[in-house]
Amino acid sequence: MKLSLAAELAVRGAVVLAQQYGKGPTTLADVCELRDLSREYLAKVFGLLARADLVTPIRGKNGGYVLARDPKEINLLQIIEAVEGPQYLNFCQYDPPKCDQVDTCKVHHIWTELQEIFENRLRSASLADCI
Amino acid sequence: MKLSLAAELAVRGAVVLAQQYGKGPTTLADVCELRDLSREYLAKVFGLLARADLVTPIRGKNGGYVLARDPKEINLLQIIEAVEGPQYLNFCQYDPPKCDQVDTCKVHHIWTELQEIFENRLRSASLADCI
Repeated sequence: MKLSLAAELAVRGAVVLAQQYGKGPTTLADVCELRDLSREYLAKVFGLLARADLVTPIRGKNGGYVLARDPKEINLLQIIEAVEGPQYLNFCQYDPPKCDQVDTCKVHHIWTELQEIFENRLRSASLADCI
Repeated sequence: MKLSLAAELAVRGAVVLAQQYGKGPTTLADVCELRDLSREYLAKVFGLLARADLVTPIRGKNGGYVLARDPKEINLLQIIEAVEGPQYLNFCQYDPPKCDQVDTCKVHHIWTELQEIFENRLRSASLADCI
């Protein structure tokens, strides 16, 4: 179980934009240099964040990317889900579950417990908390 | 972030063996029927669990698989790691970390917190707790 590379880059890139919030657009090249990221891949990842209305691409000579809103208003779960989709730690956490024994399975309760901790912790962490 | 299919099957299969503990070997066919699993794939997964000394294959006419020891002595983290390898929720949790900014990065602390919760919860859950 591991965060995808795309989500990893999304979090790192979003944290850079949070650090630059209010200072105008940051270019992909600058984001990549600050966090040692692959520019080509980050462009795709930022495209997904833009589609989820979490970052805004600014066109033109001094263009780049900005956060779509205040870093306090964006959390890590939103960033990760924009790239990976809804987070389900395992099959029994899907809605509906990909298992026919969730009503009786004791492992299911453990996954549900971890799923809630995981989601709540990432939801409670705003980008402002991460800079 | 999601548990792999192999680890999912490993947990389900190991729980069946825990339920059958002390009653002799259980065939792959029986495990699959009890938990609606793919027999071919489960054979590979049980091979990994056997290599990690968590289950024991019993050859012969009435053969099958048994847990290598009491269900109280095997935990979910061992089962998952036997199949997926060491669990690192993201790149900064690797040893050494796959990031050069763990000393200053605030997101790193959140991942470390979740990593510890995740490992401790799965380590504290024995197969005996899951039946």
